[in-house]
Amino acid sequence: MNIKITLKYLGYLLAIEGAFMFPAMMIALFCGERTALTGFAVTAVILLAIGVPLSFLKEENPTLYAKDGFFIVALSWIVVSLFGAMPFTISGAIPSYVDAFFETVSGFTTTGASILTEIESLPKAILYWRSFTHWLGGMGVLVFILAIIPKSAGSGVSLHILRAESPGPVVGKLVPKMRSTARILYAIYIVLTLLELFFLLIGGMPLFDAVTVSFGTAGTGGFAITNNSIAAYDSYYLQGVITVFMLLFSVNFNIYYLLLSREFRAAYKDTELRVFLGIVCVSVLAIAVNIWHTGQALCETFFGALHHSAFQVATIVSTTGFATTDFNQWPAFSKMILLLLMFIGASAGSTGGGMKVSRVIILAKSILSEIKKLIHPNSIKLVRVSGKVVSPDVVHSVNGYFAVYIALIALSTLCLSIDNFNFETTFSAVVACFNNIGPGFDMVGAAGNYSAFSNFGKLVLCADMLLGRLEIFPILLLFSPSLWRRTK
Amino acid sequence: MNIKITLKYLGYLLAIEGAFMFPAMMIALFCGERTALTGFAVTAVILLAIGVPLSFLKEENPTLYAKDGFFIVALSWIVVSLFGAMPFTISGAIPSYVDAFFETVSGFTTTGASILTEIESLPKAILYWRSFTHWLGGMGVLVFILAIIPKSAGSGVSLHILRAESPGPVVGKLVPKMRSTARILYAIYIVLTLLELFFLLIGGMPLFDAVTVSFGTAGTGGFAITNNSIAAYDSYYLQGVITVFMLLFSVNFNIYYLLLSREFRAAYKDTELRVFLGIVCVSVLAIAVNIWHTGQALCETFFGALHHSAFQVATIVSTTGFATTDFNQWPAFSKMILLLLMFIGASAGSTGGGMKVSRVIILAKSILSEIKKLIHPNSIKLVRVSGKVVSPDVVHSVNGYFAVYIALIALSTLCLSIDNFNFETTFSAVVACFNNIGPGFDMVGAAGNYSAFSNFGKLVLCADMLLGRLEIFPILLLFSPSLWRRTK
Repeated sequence: MNIKITLKYLGYLLAIEGAFMFPAMMIALFCGERTALTGFAVTAVILLAIGVPLSFLKEENPTLYAKDGFFIVALSWIVVSLFGAMPFTISGAIPSYVDAFFETVSGFTTTGASILTEIESLPKAILYWRSFTHWLGGMGVLVFILAIIPKSAGSGVSLHILRAESPGPVVGKLVPKMRSTARILYAIYIVLTLLELFFLLIGGMPLFDAVTVSFGTAGTGGFAITNNSIAAYDSYYLQGVITVFMLLFSVNFNIYYLLLSREFRAAYKDTELRVFLGIVCVSVLAIAVNIWHTGQALCETFFGALHHSAFQVATIVSTTGFATTDFNQWPAFSKMILLLLMFIGASAGSTGGGMKVSRVIILAKSILSEIKKLIHPNSIKLVRVSGKVVSPDVVHSVNGYFAVYIALIALSTLCLSIDNFNFETTFSAVVACFNNIGPGFDMVGAAGNYSAFSNFGKLVLCADMLLGRLEIFPILLLFSPSLWRRTK
Repeated sequence: MNIKITLKYLGYLLAIEGAFMFPAMMIALFCGERTALTGFAVTAVILLAIGVPLSFLKEENPTLYAKDGFFIVALSWIVVSLFGAMPFTISGAIPSYVDAFFETVSGFTTTGASILTEIESLPKAILYWRSFTHWLGGMGVLVFILAIIPKSAGSGVSLHILRAESPGPVVGKLVPKMRSTARILYAIYIVLTLLELFFLLIGGMPLFDAVTVSFGTAGTGGFAITNNSIAAYDSYYLQGVITVFMLLFSVNFNIYYLLLSREFRAAYKDTELRVFLGIVCVSVLAIAVNIWHTGQALCETFFGALHHSAFQVATIVSTTGFATTDFNQWPAFSKMILLLLMFIGASAGSTGGGMKVSRVIILAKSILSEIKKLIHPNSIKLVRVSGKVVSPDVVHSVNGYFAVYIALIALSTLCLSIDNFNFETTFSAVVACFNNIGPGFDMVGAAGNYSAFSNFGKLVLCADMLLGRLEIFPILLLFSPSLWRRTK
């Protein structure tokens, strides 16, 4: 690995994290929240003091490998979370540092799992920062850096970084220049966030609420500033707007770029988009029929059932994790659909988590081709998505990804079972954290939280959230001895 | 597909199933069980009347494909279960035919899941037949036919049949001749069964109990003739003998052939055997420590904890499903280890179920080679097991198997959730049936049974048991239109 360039990127990152604490400080100042102000001020000073000098390091070695990209991304996410947790503890909002770390990892990874039992009484500045971590983590902290750093810096490693931080089986550039790709992605992201803010404000949501909810939706995070999440905004319009935007943010951003480039045909033919919308429609209908007239709260009419089913499907498939109702009380069939959606997740190249729809498509098609091969042993069956052949290498790596994904979920569930909660709680906690959703079932359901786990359990779940957000390999590689050998 | 040869094999099978009902009829006669006698007699007559004429069909077409092997195996297992269930219903022991079918599929697939709430009052002939299905299903009904049919019959298809019916990622012949391979396998199987019977009789177990327990152990099935399973034989010696034999029957039978051929070195170097024993030892110790001194019944001393842990690990990893204690009451960590063992299962080429240890090894090694490839993109990393290179085709097909295995478990859990039981019950029922274990957790735990599910739910679980026993593809292929096209 290349220490100099790693430290330089870390420097950028810490300086920028420090800078991003200024809005929170403004809010603390404006609302007279002295403890929060201290927390952010102290952390920002430390971040700038470490970050700025590091960012001026000179890079000497232009040869950079894929593993350098993995290493920078993995280390960055851990460090940014370690510092991002400090204001919570210094301000006293979350006294335990492990809890604060959990909350921050949950924020940056856009999971939205919380150890807080009482949210509304927290300082506004803290609530702002908590929701902002979703927004920054959604599109990627390093993609943000790629968009703003000077042209010359770290040009060799930037494609590797984009690949390591962006979700999906195949990550490519939208345009030849890396910096332009990062800028286009962030431009689309900012415009969509502002659009949601606009529609929420029209519906009469207070400004502060609208900003934090928009952050939470855009990053597909799920932190709310109310104790009962989106149920607090008892309006079909507001909940409808959030439903639509959760789905918009779980579509591959390439699609928006295609639309902007007026390539409507290519967007229309995209297999992942079609399958994603198909999954959403079927799930919404199946759950609506299942919860209608079965005595579930707010589901007496079919429209009510459809509304809550659509919100809940959108919040789970986008891996956001907002709630309008306690879906823990729903029938087993509806809960099982939601659990499966947790695994599938959103589209590649979106801000959502989970396995990603495109991986599910490639897996399904490779299974079908295996079956065909059994009947016609000599036929050669290639996997095609959106009319294009997927290279066998990608198919194998998707199969490998699936195997290690399931193995890690199993291993985490085993570790978490030491805390001795029931299987539904333990398993769904791991699934909800690994896929960056937030709420699971039973004790960690929409009406519950993660406070009851031991520190060990919370750290296991932190690892799961990072593994899920960075798609496993960057984090796993940290444990590989050969990564730690210096290349220069 | 080739209709003539399929019918011919079905004919052999039905005739032999009819013949195997004679011992049960003898028992019914001896014990004066008139309803059971009628049940077996009627079924045997029907079986012989259909089977014998079919077995005399002339085969015309010597060209046979792998898909013919799959088709014959899948159809045979379904037909043999449909007829095998008849004595239960005709005798009135299990009035519902769906229940009887469930019990029979559970028997032949060596699952041992039961819909019966009261076992001890059943006729002895019925109990004998129920346990015998385990023994016949364990090594394979068609492998039995291969061992006894005339040399000339269906020689073209027999390797395909052996491959389709025997568990594991790679199935080969022990000796060049197919018939000899089948005979060697059955000879080892019979000798091991008799050995267990001998040791149980020495320990003072009554003859009828010892025979049925030996059938249940040999096939790694799990049906007992007592309401509280092996807890009824309250002797450390008897439970210990069963523990050892459950493990012996979950070792690849090739190992015994190697030992008989005095190739001790090859047996000693077998990776699957080493990993299997490693998994067993670690699990036994971890559970023993976990249940010791935590107020669990019979686990006050470390020896007691070790004894019950060893029995329970052996019964789950071998996918037998006997019980000496209600492990449902154990701590979450122990239960989670057992759940993971359910997925791993026994060795390839044994009578046990699950994913098979060799598949787990190949999966784990292919994951490691994927990770190494990320760090050194140009390196070529082959997967080796027992010192030999595993061909990339086998590695890919194991990855594909894993994906379709997980997908089918997810789909089955979704279907079964319509019955609206809790997640632990629903999920563990599917896992326990698919991996041919028998008892799961909560409602379907060691102290429970499967009677509460709807007929639809029971049929879903029947499909899972068959999918698990035949390793998915033979059953899946039944739904492929191209299989049903006649080749002649």
